This record gives sequence, C-alpha cells and structure tokens, in this order.
Amino acid sequence: MHGGVPVYVPLRPKFDGNKVISSNEWRLDINELRAKITPKSKIIVLNTPHNPIGKVFSKEELIEIGQVAIDHNLLIISDEVYDRLYFRPDTHERIANLPGLWERTITVGSAGKTFGVTGWRVGWLIGHHHLIETALAAHTRIVFCTNSPLQEAAAIGFEKADEHNFFDNQIAIYERRREKLIQPFADLGLPYTIPQGSYFLLVNISKIRVPENYQFPDIIQKRPKDFKVCYWMAKEIGVVAIPTSEFYSSENHHLGENYARFAFCKTDETLDEAARALMNSL
Amino acid sequence: MHGGVPVYVPLRPKFDGNKVISSNEWRLDINELRAKITPKSKIIVLNTPHNPIGKVFSKEELIEIGQVAIDHNLLIISDEVYDRLYFRPDTHERIANLPGLWERTITVGSAGKTFGVTGWRVGWLIGHHHLIETALAAHTRIVFCTNSPLQEAAAIGFEKADEHNFFDNQIAIYERRREKLIQPFADLGLPYTIPQGSYFLLVNISKIRVPENYQFPDIIQKRPKDFKVCYWMAKEIGVVAIPTSEFYSSENHHLGENYARFAFCKTDETLDEAARALMNSL
Repeated sequence: MHGGVPVYVPLRPKFDGNKVISSNEWRLDINELRAKITPKSKIIVLNTPHNPIGKVFSKEELIEIGQVAIDHNLLIISDEVYDRLYFRPDTHERIANLPGLWERTITVGSAGKTFGVTGWRVGWLIGHHHLIETALAAHTRIVFCTNSPLQEAAAIGFEKADEHNFFDNQIAIYERRREKLIQPFADLGLPYTIPQGSYFLLVNISKIRVPENYQFPDIIQKRPKDFKVCYWMAKEIGVVAIPTSEFYSSENHHLGENYARFAFCKTDETLDEAARALMNSL
Repeated sequence: MHGGVPVYVPLRPKFDGNKVISSNEWRLDINELRAKITPKSKIIVLNTPHNPIGKVFSKEELIEIGQVAIDHNLLIISDEVYDRLYFRPDTHERIANLPGLWERTITVGSAGKTFGVTGWRVGWLIGHHHLIETALAAHTRIVFCTNSPLQEAAAIGFEKADEHNFFDNQIAIYERRREKLIQPFADLGLPYTIPQGSYFLLVNISKIRVPENYQFPDIIQKRPKDFKVCYWMAKEIGVVAIPTSEFYSSENHHLGENYARFAFCKTDETLDEAARALMNSL
C-alpha cells in the first residue's frame, strides 16, 4: 500500500534435496542477504519456525540476521506463528530477545497456530511501544478490531496452559503425527525434509510420475510440476498437498517445483487413511 | 489498492439544519451524482440506512440511483449493515431487488449490526455469482476466512430469529432508546435529525459553547468545531459523541462541522446517565 518492493532471499537446501535431510540443512546465505540491502531497504521479514520448510533458525543464524538489521538500521518483522511447535532437540528462539533487537523487532503470533484453532482468526504483535502504537493505528483503520469473544478465549487459553501442561502435550502429539506422516514417504523411497518445527512435511516429488496422458485443466497445465502432481494427487488419490513453488516469488519458482507440502495437523485416523491411499497409488 | 479515486456526493439537509428534521430531509442531489459520472466511473457506493445521518433511502430515491448505474453501466456496492434497524413508518428497501440491478449490485451485511454483537467481526456480501466469486477470491488472499465459530453462531441466529420474534423486538427496543436519547436534546433546545434507521442521532451542536479559555491538545486544536465540542464533552461531561466532519471528505468537512453523532445502542441506564450529565452541563 505504501509502494514497498519485496526482495526475496530464499532458503536453499545444502544438498540437492534428493535425499532425506533435516530442515536445518536449508540455509539462508547471509552474504546474499547483505548483497540485497540497499539504502532504500526498510524491513527484514523473517519466518521461524518456517512454513513450508519447517526450519527453526538457530540462535547463531538469528544473531547474523540481527546484525544485518543493526548495521543497516532496519526493522524486523518476525513471523513466529509456529513458536509453540518445535521438536526435540531444537527450541525456538525469538530474534527480538537478542541484544539490541527488541527496539527494532515486531514479533507476530497466532492463536490459530498456538492452540490449533486456525478458524478463530486471532493473532497478535509483540514489540516496543513505538512500533505497536503505529501498528495499532493502522489496525484500527483497516479491521477496526479482532473478534473479542475468541480473543478473550485465547487469553484464557494462555492463562490455563501451564496448569494443563498444554504446550508440552501438544508437542508430543505433533511429534507422533510427524512420524506417522513421514512413514509412507520413507516406505515409498520419496526423499523428504524432517521439520524441526511447524506441522509441515516437505516431500521431494520429483520421482512421482503422473500418467502421461492425464488431462489437466488449463489453470494447472501452465503451472510448474509441483502443481500438476498436487492436482493429480488431490483428484485421483484423495490426498491434498500444497505445491511449494506457490511459496516462492516468480524468480525463485524453480526452488519449489520439486516439492509438495503435506500437513500433519490432522487426526491419527486421517493420517492413517492418507498413508494407505499414498501407499496404494504411488 | 487498484488506484481507484473516490468521488463524493454528500447528503445535504433540505433545511439549514438548525431545527428538528427527519433524516429523510437529508437529500442526495441526483443531478449532482449524474454530473460527477465520467467514462472512468466504475462503482456507486451507497449506504442505507445511513451512518451517521440515519436516513433510510426511499424506493423512489433508490430507483433514481439505480437508473444512473444502468445508464452508465456501473456496479453498486450497497452498504446495508443497518438493514434490520428502521423505524415506523419507514421500511428498508434493498436496491438489489429493483429491476435490472441484481446483476450489478453487491449488498453488504453485518452480524455485528444485525444482532448487536459488533465485536464478532462477521459480515457477508449478497450478490450474483459472478460478483461474489471475484470478491471471494480477494477475501481468500486478504483475510483467508472469517472466524468460523462466530460465523456459525450468526447463521444459527438467523435460523432462530423468527421463532423468537427477534428483529421486531429489537426494533421496538431501539425505538424506545431513540426517544430516550432525543429527550435531553429536545429539552435543551438543541436541534437534531430524527433517524429513520440505524442507531445514531445527529445533533446540531452549533449552540454549544465550550469555555473560551479551554485548553485543547494540538491534535484537536487544528480540527473543526465538532472535534472541539466532542473532545470537551468527553473530557468534561463524560459523554462521548463522534465529530461528524470525520465522515466527510476534506472538501465537504464543512457539512459535518456543526454536528455530533450520538449512539443509542446503549442500555437504558447508560442513556439515562448520559441525559442527566448533558442536562447538568449544557
């Protein structure tokens, strides 16, 4: 709305991606980030735990990114909506907690991700007064307010979470679901990225063969391979994944086109059914 | 976002506004509307029942506006969020129901206004498939979805409304509240506009005198008279009204600067307390 131009610095897999790797092997090239800073740069937008890759940035990586922000006097918008979803041995670090970064960082949170209630549409920003004040002024004019009944419910959720050991229990449930979703791809010999956080599994789909004479609608026909595989899986196998190229800017589409993002924020029954369908059809 | 330029055609009071009038005496000059249409015009944005004036456009007025849309092949966005709040003898008409207008009109509704739950943040659009399809595509990318628990609650509200005679009861309650809010201004001799709909009362404040040496903050000092009166009332009398010039584009600020908008979507106790405070201090 203010004419800002997004400039993208993608995560790249350390290996060619055609074997099983951890999401920490997807790396940000800090020199590439530094090379893209210009005198017009205003904000670094960061996402950790990362969607769709599941990467949880380490403290060392965050220190490097933070130093770029300090050196060039940039703000940081840190999308941390999966901050309660990380798996042993990793833990989520907030970049805002690093020395010198609190005053220049807005941290984004989500009740939908935190409590598994994405339909609630409640979120928040955490930051220094001078940043939040400005965000609030915009928020008031754009959406006026968040729905207050579910906002109150989310606040009570936080108050009661410890008493019910909610977040530890939730992590244990998602760890089990992660293993459950990984199994069919391991059995099929399809390489994947083991996510350190979030509830997504990135699967390398380059070995999946869609029948040669399969008829795609025009809107899919002109998209990269990941769109075609995801369309075919949804229609013919009944399993829905998100084509990963959609997460990239057009110049970086090629980085996503061999992957599909599956989600394990599903019941055990749904995950079992998906596994059966995939094993039967791939 | 697409570079559209809003062009304003204000409602104007038939009389100088310095006496008690009905909101139907605020008129749209249809020739002024026609004069402002250019080949670049795309959409007429209409609001009925009208905030802040309370006007409920008559069928005859809507036919005239609709004819302009037909003559120039324009869309209509009709903001009808107060469509359940109108007072005898007036009834709300939807412009979309007039001949030839369904295919070119998007009607905007609100659970917040319909059920008195403005904190729910649930609304809807009603229109032809080809219009709603496009709006949905934008909605999906902008907010993804509405909060689903309260959306479901609003739907159940509509299903159960007749059984409880909800809307007729609500109108009766608001009619009584309208009279209650009017009373102190009638007693004080301050002219007002009797609203045909909505829950707002527009009061002519030109007779209200703020003490001459009253100190306003800079942000108020530079605004029109209605801002000063509303600030002073909020701070010194404890009664909050909205300065009406804020509803107008800058070229039309003068049309609002002698008015303040009071709301009667309040409990009887609050309205009584406000009336006492106004009577004691004005």
